[in-house]
Amino acid sequence: MSSFEFHLTHTDPSGARRGEFTTPHGKVQTPIFMPVGTAAAMKAITPAQLSEAGGQILLANAYHLANRPGPDLIEKLGGLHGFMGWEGPILTDSGGYQVFSLKTRQVDEEGVTFSYHKGGAPARLTPSSSMNIQERLGADIIMAFDECVEFPTTHAYAKEALKRTTKWAKICKSVHQRKDQALFGISQGALFEDLRKQSLAELQEIDFPGYAIGGLSVGEGLDNMNRALDFITPLMPMDKPRYLMGIGLPEDMLEAIERGVDMMDCVIPTKFARSGVLFTHAGRIRVTNGEFRKDKFPPDTHCRCYTCSHFSRAYLHHLFAANEVLSATLTSIHNLHFYLGLMRQARTAIEEGRYLSFKADFYALYFRKERKKSPSRSKGK
Amino acid sequence: MSSFEFHLTHTDPSGARRGEFTTPHGKVQTPIFMPVGTAAAMKAITPAQLSEAGGQILLANAYHLANRPGPDLIEKLGGLHGFMGWEGPILTDSGGYQVFSLKTRQVDEEGVTFSYHKGGAPARLTPSSSMNIQERLGADIIMAFDECVEFPTTHAYAKEALKRTTKWAKICKSVHQRKDQALFGISQGALFEDLRKQSLAELQEIDFPGYAIGGLSVGEGLDNMNRALDFITPLMPMDKPRYLMGIGLPEDMLEAIERGVDMMDCVIPTKFARSGVLFTHAGRIRVTNGEFRKDKFPPDTHCRCYTCSHFSRAYLHHLFAANEVLSATLTSIHNLHFYLGLMRQARTAIEEGRYLSFKADFYALYFRKERKKSPSRSKGK
Repeated sequence: MSSFEFHLTHTDPSGARRGEFTTPHGKVQTPIFMPVGTAAAMKAITPAQLSEAGGQILLANAYHLANRPGPDLIEKLGGLHGFMGWEGPILTDSGGYQVFSLKTRQVDEEGVTFSYHKGGAPARLTPSSSMNIQERLGADIIMAFDECVEFPTTHAYAKEALKRTTKWAKICKSVHQRKDQALFGISQGALFEDLRKQSLAELQEIDFPGYAIGGLSVGEGLDNMNRALDFITPLMPMDKPRYLMGIGLPEDMLEAIERGVDMMDCVIPTKFARSGVLFTHAGRIRVTNGEFRKDKFPPDTHCRCYTCSHFSRAYLHHLFAANEVLSATLTSIHNLHFYLGLMRQARTAIEEGRYLSFKADFYALYFRKERKKSPSRSKGK
Repeated sequence: MSSFEFHLTHTDPSGARRGEFTTPHGKVQTPIFMPVGTAAAMKAITPAQLSEAGGQILLANAYHLANRPGPDLIEKLGGLHGFMGWEGPILTDSGGYQVFSLKTRQVDEEGVTFSYHKGGAPARLTPSSSMNIQERLGADIIMAFDECVEFPTTHAYAKEALKRTTKWAKICKSVHQRKDQALFGISQGALFEDLRKQSLAELQEIDFPGYAIGGLSVGEGLDNMNRALDFITPLMPMDKPRYLMGIGLPEDMLEAIERGVDMMDCVIPTKFARSGVLFTHAGRIRVTNGEFRKDKFPPDTHCRCYTCSHFSRAYLHHLFAANEVLSATLTSIHNLHFYLGLMRQARTAIEEGRYLSFKADFYALYFRKERKKSPSRSKGK
């Protein structure tokens, strides 16, 4: 018996879901956004600051950690939780997505051969090795090793990759032993409805405590993603969490939640922060722009985060101009607070059965500056 | 009447002093170390983290801030306190030290001409302009504009510079208007006892609420500094705070305190932190060294800071290896906590009249690894 449990508490008329899952390191309220700490560290912020910004669960990458510092060391130092000083739930990605982003990968039926650095020694990931690494990293939720397909792709190739993904998912399930970890399956099939149907049916045959939607957020755009989610999520079981991998911008998340997604992760809030882009209820701003040099207002006048409570846009502008690393810390705190706050607002709206009006109100203010541009046209990754 | 007050509460048999000063932004317990936030920002840590590490008062630099973002903007945004979100006391340096560090400066009787960047437009600082800038920055303690002399120097040049420093100190005092700021005088005179005597007598004639010792920590070494302090501090009034500028390593600070110094500032704890050097009660360690790759202990087993309570040396080693900026944050938190904790321990020892035995106990452990090297040989800046 796994110690992982999920239950739905509310379903909005729109299809948006409100739920909760339990892990050995605490409960998580869904829908939830999971900040990314790739190398067992959030960039520029401490675990205490992530917690203060509302972080419930974070994501780390088996691909990076397998290479450095290695799963042996992390295991000896108390697993990821002990190593990185984060006491809440953690999810690790299997490495599937990362190796398939590499141009020089070689896929065979048993796994993938690649190198960590250009010209570096060959490394290999297989379903078994990914399980072994993720067991030693010790996250609460771990992911099956899948084959993620580039966009665009052919039906024929997507079908081949899907067959390997199912085969590998079976291996992952059979070798995975730690009962304190929940192993999620990852569905593939690109934008092809018949393949997504096949993938999800095969994964449910194997039986996982949660299902992820892989192979989206690979450049298909919001409209394509929405169309895909429209046929994918109805194929997924109601009583298991649904994790849309690698999403996204605020509008991506709100559209995904409307279509019944429970979990998401993305580097956007922290990555954009480091280049001076702040998410606010009135839209995105680039605080490095000259117009903010003397701006005495906080980044987001609606926000109560540490950054907005203490600092002006002019101060953040100054920090970037002076090349002070505190810029990354303060902007990351705000963006994470914004993302996690948006999830909190979405959860409340679902509880109250008014998700669509919440979303409409959010868009009305968020896209106002862009003359009520539709969300599909605001894609700016 | 200035709102600044200083009083001594204890004097140790060694000569070390325990006191307190009051500013419009709160009280400061002395002896105190002042962390440096040059450009109105502590590098890699927030004001909240500085406060949690025990920070009482911080230092910013008029030289840098005059250039970027400029005193007008900072004044409009509530002065340094409002601008940088630090509610405690702040001290600004006058720019004297910074301009004299520039190779291309041109000194005349009225001030200094220089450029902020190689080949940049000429800029000029004078006693009046430094006062004007510092008044607009709005720190609680501001410094007279002085001429700091390189080490080594001749008696003749040191005497000339001292005459200018006195002349400029008079101008600073006469143009300074803000009653909520304490203007400190800075004594010069290099390592020459007669010149230090002259400088301090002339400054006391002008009358300042506090006196700084400038022109040390310029490469003279700890033995020379100690010899100079041995004759300088007895020339200073008992009832005013004594600020030794630009100091230093832990042993520099403890030697200075023994000689009756009350205030110090330095970039060392944060600068060393960013290159992986951690101060511990058992001596300095460089956490980027291979020996720490698998070290499960906290940086300092005696320490209760956020970093030592949550992270191992192996984790910090990993953060540096992975080029994660969190490395700078966590090591800076620890080093500042160490410095500020050392001041706290020194204050308690002075209250209890056991400063010399406290210092001996600290050195016994701190220099143990270096085979009880004397502090004067451990200088490692």
